[in-house]
Amino acid sequence: MTSLAEESALATDLYELTMAASYFENHMAETPATFSLYVRNYPPGRGYLVAAGLEDVLETITHFHFSEADLSYLEATGTFSNAFLEYLHQLRFTGDIRALPEGELFFPDEPILEITAPIIEAQVLETVIINVVNLQSMIATKAARCVYAAGGRRVVDFSLRRTQGIEAGMKVARSSYMAGFSATSNVLAGRIYGIPTTGTMAHSYVSSFGDEIAAFRAFARSFPDNTVLLIDTYDTVEGAHKAATVGREMAKEGKRLVGVRLDSGNMVELSRQVRRILDDAGLTETRIFASSSFDEYKIADTLGQGARIDAFGVGTKMGVCADAPYLDMVYKLVEYAGRPIMKLSAKKANLPGKKQVFRRTGPRGLFAEDVIGTTDDTIGDAQALLDPVVRSGRLLRPHPALEEIRIRFRRRFSLLDDRFKDLRAAETYPVRISDRLRGLQEKIRAEKAWN
Amino acid sequence: MTSLAEESALATDLYELTMAASYFENHMAETPATFSLYVRNYPPGRGYLVAAGLEDVLETITHFHFSEADLSYLEATGTFSNAFLEYLHQLRFTGDIRALPEGELFFPDEPILEITAPIIEAQVLETVIINVVNLQSMIATKAARCVYAAGGRRVVDFSLRRTQGIEAGMKVARSSYMAGFSATSNVLAGRIYGIPTTGTMAHSYVSSFGDEIAAFRAFARSFPDNTVLLIDTYDTVEGAHKAATVGREMAKEGKRLVGVRLDSGNMVELSRQVRRILDDAGLTETRIFASSSFDEYKIADTLGQGARIDAFGVGTKMGVCADAPYLDMVYKLVEYAGRPIMKLSAKKANLPGKKQVFRRTGPRGLFAEDVIGTTDDTIGDAQALLDPVVRSGRLLRPHPALEEIRIRFRRRFSLLDDRFKDLRAAETYPVRISDRLRGLQEKIRAEKAWN
Repeated sequence: MTSLAEESALATDLYELTMAASYFENHMAETPATFSLYVRNYPPGRGYLVAAGLEDVLETITHFHFSEADLSYLEATGTFSNAFLEYLHQLRFTGDIRALPEGELFFPDEPILEITAPIIEAQVLETVIINVVNLQSMIATKAARCVYAAGGRRVVDFSLRRTQGIEAGMKVARSSYMAGFSATSNVLAGRIYGIPTTGTMAHSYVSSFGDEIAAFRAFARSFPDNTVLLIDTYDTVEGAHKAATVGREMAKEGKRLVGVRLDSGNMVELSRQVRRILDDAGLTETRIFASSSFDEYKIADTLGQGARIDAFGVGTKMGVCADAPYLDMVYKLVEYAGRPIMKLSAKKANLPGKKQVFRRTGPRGLFAEDVIGTTDDTIGDAQALLDPVVRSGRLLRPHPALEEIRIRFRRRFSLLDDRFKDLRAAETYPVRISDRLRGLQEKIRAEKAWN
Repeated sequence: MTSLAEESALATDLYELTMAASYFENHMAETPATFSLYVRNYPPGRGYLVAAGLEDVLETITHFHFSEADLSYLEATGTFSNAFLEYLHQLRFTGDIRALPEGELFFPDEPILEITAPIIEAQVLETVIINVVNLQSMIATKAARCVYAAGGRRVVDFSLRRTQGIEAGMKVARSSYMAGFSATSNVLAGRIYGIPTTGTMAHSYVSSFGDEIAAFRAFARSFPDNTVLLIDTYDTVEGAHKAATVGREMAKEGKRLVGVRLDSGNMVELSRQVRRILDDAGLTETRIFASSSFDEYKIADTLGQGARIDAFGVGTKMGVCADAPYLDMVYKLVEYAGRPIMKLSAKKANLPGKKQVFRRTGPRGLFAEDVIGTTDDTIGDAQALLDPVVRSGRLLRPHPALEEIRIRFRRRFSLLDDRFKDLRAAETYPVRISDRLRGLQEKIRAEKAWN
């Protein structure tokens, strides 16, 4: 499936094109520029961020072109010269990209991605690059928090109905799976990304039968190997008794009732009652799924109060990242014609020049400190995190499979100390600026003071 | 441009398909059912909601089919019988839809849309219908609040870079324009929806020139008829003086500096200082644009404190509806095989049966009260709001043009009293249940109590 941004280079802000037109007329089109993508501040409560979206960025950039429909539209606006439209017609991405791999952890101020290209190419891609990486990194981070809160229990993506668009639902399924979710309810994400899918029944199914146990029996007949019964349509405790009856009937036929699902009410009390009812019926292997407005906070609180829940369905609040539905992510010019660029204003200052992120490990192999340096820096035995991924417009290697990225995330996340993972009071992971980069900042500041 | 949901019927939750399979095996596939789409509660601070998304719902439903790729994937999962996959292969939407027109105002519990169809057809569309109407109605509502706060000043959509996906950015542009925004920065939305586009320059443009006034002059040369200068790259007041210089130079050539843009700092003080600088230079017609984390609250507060701003660029906070990034929107079975369906639980009770929304007007033609009734009700001279839009799977008429919907919204919004529009303390608009619908509820409740 091609995305909107692959079909059309117009998925951008108009000012990217007006600036491009002005660069073109001022003979600056070919001047090399470097832009850096980074997050300025932590969203509330976060102690780390998870990089995601690179695959889509690379797909978009390598397919980047203005279609005939795009050019006809631009011509009809009367805003642009024919010479500039001719220029857009042949425009492709010819630059270089260095980026964090998907699934890597990162922190504010650290470049996620740096693009060096003729300024127009790098400039017109700003909007789509921020859009893609903002959504997917935000969701991967939120999902990682949910998985962490669930402490080894399964967490499943149920968000598609209220994600901000179907495309967003696809990206949420992919990003949450990357960050450790076990499955998704989104069937198209199953087809496109190979993510395991899951799902059973809605209240409407039970209502359409009228008789709850008749609905349970019908479903068990249809899916004898994967029966999960939704038990709260009328009364959860009565529903649990009926599910137990059906579970015993299934056992006589050599089948196992896989689970029951709770979707409303007090999850702590109900899950304990339901567990007892199932255990009393000998259904000790039947699992309890819960799916009622969960996010990382509610998962942690519910488990902390002794709920007996084996798996969580996490929907809307993860799928729109409800407590922090955007990152403070920006894409800034950091070098132009070989000259490092730095804004001086205290609040919006950027780190000048092409950069690299170095990660040092400490005792037990845990991450100890990150250093943001220039690309010329070498920081002892630290690991350099930004990899070259595109050179002269060409992908340097195929993108890793989602399963591989998922494993990478798990491995990297295991190396971050728990004190940076607390849901509400995470410590701030140490990130410092290298001496060389600090020196560059001071040099620019001093030069500007003399001008 | 086709959407993901038009290309594939798998943009749905797996349980829609497992339920469908079970209906199919239990010979319930053809049984008529009615589902109702509505919002259960106001999002925080809201006093009304704006209906949007119907056009996309109708596009999706009339193109609804399982593609070969969909069916191959489902077959490979091993979950479904061949007979059921054959059934899906030929499945199209053959039912009826009644809906609020786009741009109409609505309130919690009122059906936005009701579908009557063989249960499988209506059930499998649940996910995509909620997804589409939730996003677009949420954004139209948020945008209407921004326009209201701006009190007649222009408001422009700048959200594309941080909407939750590019598709979301398209829907945000359309929904916000419907609700009174003047333009969008999203060029593809200009091409696809015919929305006016707007945009000038970023800080990177000024930085790439190094010299601010050189950047201003270059831009004025490139776009002499539509020059808006971003004046806060270094120091806003100095930037305003340089813009005034360029504005005077333009005036000598018979051109007009259209505007300046502020993007950081104290908007009240800066806008007043900049206004004075422009006025002192004789540039009384040069407008001040502002674009710094605006939403309806910041627009109202900034204007309330005496800011001199002529137009607002509204981005992320509107584009993701940051203070309330989802609606409590549900799609519930309300009738099955001619039998009205009602859940009894106090919290999640639904209104049974097929319904209609009646709106009564009072003095000065303002909306006085809504009555939710059955489709058999007649409520005096009230206006019935749900229109038939699809019959037996066919669209009854072409969808109205976006400009027409925009006008409808403006007209309807003008008939809602200001006391329901307050940003922080809106009164609750009166919505009651008709006697006939109340009777139906009581009848069902009494029957269940006896069972």
